[in-house]
Amino acid sequence: MTKMVVVFHSGYGHTQRMAQFVAEGAKASLVEINDEGLVTPEGWAELDQSDGIIFGSPTYMGVVSWQFKRFADSSSKQWYSRAWQDKVAAGFTISANLSGDKLSTLQYMMTLAMQHGMLWVGQSSHCDGGVNRLGSYSGVMAQVGSTQSASEISLGDLETAKAYGLRVAELTQRLHAKT
Amino acid sequence: MTKMVVVFHSGYGHTQRMAQFVAEGAKASLVEINDEGLVTPEGWAELDQSDGIIFGSPTYMGVVSWQFKRFADSSSKQWYSRAWQDKVAAGFTISANLSGDKLSTLQYMMTLAMQHGMLWVGQSSHCDGGVNRLGSYSGVMAQVGSTQSASEISLGDLETAKAYGLRVAELTQRLHAKT
Amino acid sequence: MTKMVVVFHSGYGHTQRMAQFVAEGAKASLVEINDEGLVTPEGWAELDQSDGIIFGSPTYMGVVSWQFKRFADSSSKQWYSRAWQDKVAAGFTISANLSGDKLSTLQYMMTLAMQHGMLWVGQSSHCDGGVNRLGSYSGVMAQVGSTQSASEISLGDLETAKAYGLRVAELTQRLHAKT
Amino acid sequence: MTKMVVVFHSGYGHTQRMAQFVAEGAKASLVEINDEGLVTPEGWAELDQSDGIIFGSPTYMGVVSWQFKRFADSSSKQWYSRAWQDKVAAGFTISANLSGDKLSTLQYMMTLAMQHGMLWVGQSSHCDGGVNRLGSYSGVMAQVGSTQSASEISLGDLETAKAYGLRVAELTQRLHAKT
Repeated sequence: MTKMVVVFHSGYGHTQRMAQFVAEGAKASLVEINDEGLVTPEGWAELDQSDGIIFGSPTYMGVVSWQFKRFADSSSKQWYSRAWQDKVAAGFTISANLSGDKLSTLQYMMTLAMQHGMLWVGQSSHCDGGVNRLGSYSGVMAQVGSTQSASEISLGDLETAKAYGLRVAELTQRLHAKT
Repeated sequence: MTKMVVVFHSGYGHTQRMAQFVAEGAKASLVEINDEGLVTPEGWAELDQSDGIIFGSPTYMGVVSWQFKRFADSSSKQWYSRAWQDKVAAGFTISANLSGDKLSTLQYMMTLAMQHGMLWVGQSSHCDGGVNRLGSYSGVMAQVGSTQSASEISLGDLETAKAYGLRVAELTQRLHAKT
Repeated sequence: MTKMVVVFHSGYGHTQRMAQFVAEGAKASLVEINDEGLVTPEGWAELDQSDGIIFGSPTYMGVVSWQFKRFADSSSKQWYSRAWQDKVAAGFTISANLSGDKLSTLQYMMTLAMQHGMLWVGQSSHCDGGVNRLGSYSGVMAQVGSTQSASEISLGDLETAKAYGLRVAELTQRLHAKT
Repeated sequence: MTKMVVVFHSGYGHTQRMAQFVAEGAKASLVEINDEGLVTPEGWAELDQSDGIIFGSPTYMGVVSWQFKRFADSSSKQWYSRAWQDKVAAGFTISANLSGDKLSTLQYMMTLAMQHGMLWVGQSSHCDGGVNRLGSYSGVMAQVGSTQSASEISLGDLETAKAYGLRVAELTQRLHAKT
């Protein structure tokens, strides 16, 4: 069986809830980036041993949060040694606007994955109103009002997250399964 | 008085309607890129004599239409001679998805403006539900269902277009007015 | 055996030469986008039957040529039916500047691949002076002076192209080989 | 007279040296983002009172450093109140690769400026070998080997920085001078 990890930073719980649904779909373990942008040694070990990594971050001021970026900068050791090469990568984000700069966040996650020599998997389902209602292809975008709590994220967005996790895990399995 | 031009390609009339509202706000003339990606000599003259240019294109397959791109490639003469340097630039797009890759279209328009040495002006109003309902900052994003006609574009999106035209024209006036 | 295709537009022969080296590394067939942005029916059939597609375009006015974009727009039929879903995708570009907006071209190719539900494979080798001398990760970047012919592309850039083709083909083989 | 500020984060002194040349050209004051991503209250006051802000950051793992991003996230107060609206913005970056993902850094700085409602000014001079040798338009890119010190940045890159500062200051003067 291949090993999947969802690594995320969540400012107010919204990204965490999305992460839980992505992880459920991917049967992945969750690694949290804390408020200082740090990951535990156990978290780093999980990432290094994984076959696929799914990145999660809110979109703040036009791209990933600084805590997520600190995590990305800390992965320069893995970058240098090519430790994450050929792992599968994917990503999701959530913010208060319907569109906003969420694509910028996914683009950066793709750039990070490319720095590591990973393969990027986006979303494949067309927008059908509920699932992928924002019409995102590079990864998952979700949206919830700025005064709404994580429990108010729409069912469609959560289902989108779960289906994406499943898709990424299946492709990782095809690429990395030991037979 | 400064001279503003809105140059746009429209596949099915949606971008054209947006262009009309942007032009109304900016008191701009309209230059159309035709279905072959061509602009008339009069259109090129208008662009060359302008103080500010606002780009408009649908988002097709993740960025501006090929017709818009052909127009952009044709502007390499102006690029080489720096003919558009220091003009003000701005942009808008419309597509069927709420988010989709509309940001990619605006990003490309910014890249094109930078190639020309122009100054880029985005949108300044926060999303208030009606105006800037998609929450775009780099320029204007509008959305209408894939089976809906141009006449069904929401009033909020049209007002957003008009207010943006006004903003771009005012800043162009401040930068380029002959005193 | 998996089937690889390199689809490219070349304005003055530079991208074509790069395409030949990528194709040699990937043991891929070549499909050319002509000066009007068109591909033959046989070319489309090759693309539809492939397991992996490598995109090639010069960087003109900050992104892919309009001919390449016309090809991308024409692939909306495949987009709608998800015909290219789960195929492997990759890309390369060449321009006269060392950096310029080549990244913008690779970003767009990634966006296009995501629209199609493909998996993106970048470059994995660090810059060593000769191979990957420009330090690109999202795909291959090459550079040659604006007055230089295709035969003057540096050996390092051509070797980079060939090694990238090999890498993309190997990962496609792992993902799509019928056992 | 208009007021210019260069705000930057520098990991090993290279970005700082670039910042000094940009500031010399722009007759700007320098505000440093420290190793924790913080700016002094005096620094924030300078930024708030400025007419134009030039952003500087190394490119780490594909975009601005986490310290620069923390600064960007901290500017959400100014974002909310539109305190920086209509200020002029510009940016520069330096990294070890000739191309790499430096464009991604400039793109993010543009996105940040758009979030704030600022006007973006890129570079206007074509590459002439020495000045703008990397061929960047969206802002200034510089390059120096990973084992080289800040004192080894090429004269051409430093001159590019200085000329860019001058250009940004002149356009700010045209837009914001009180007459």
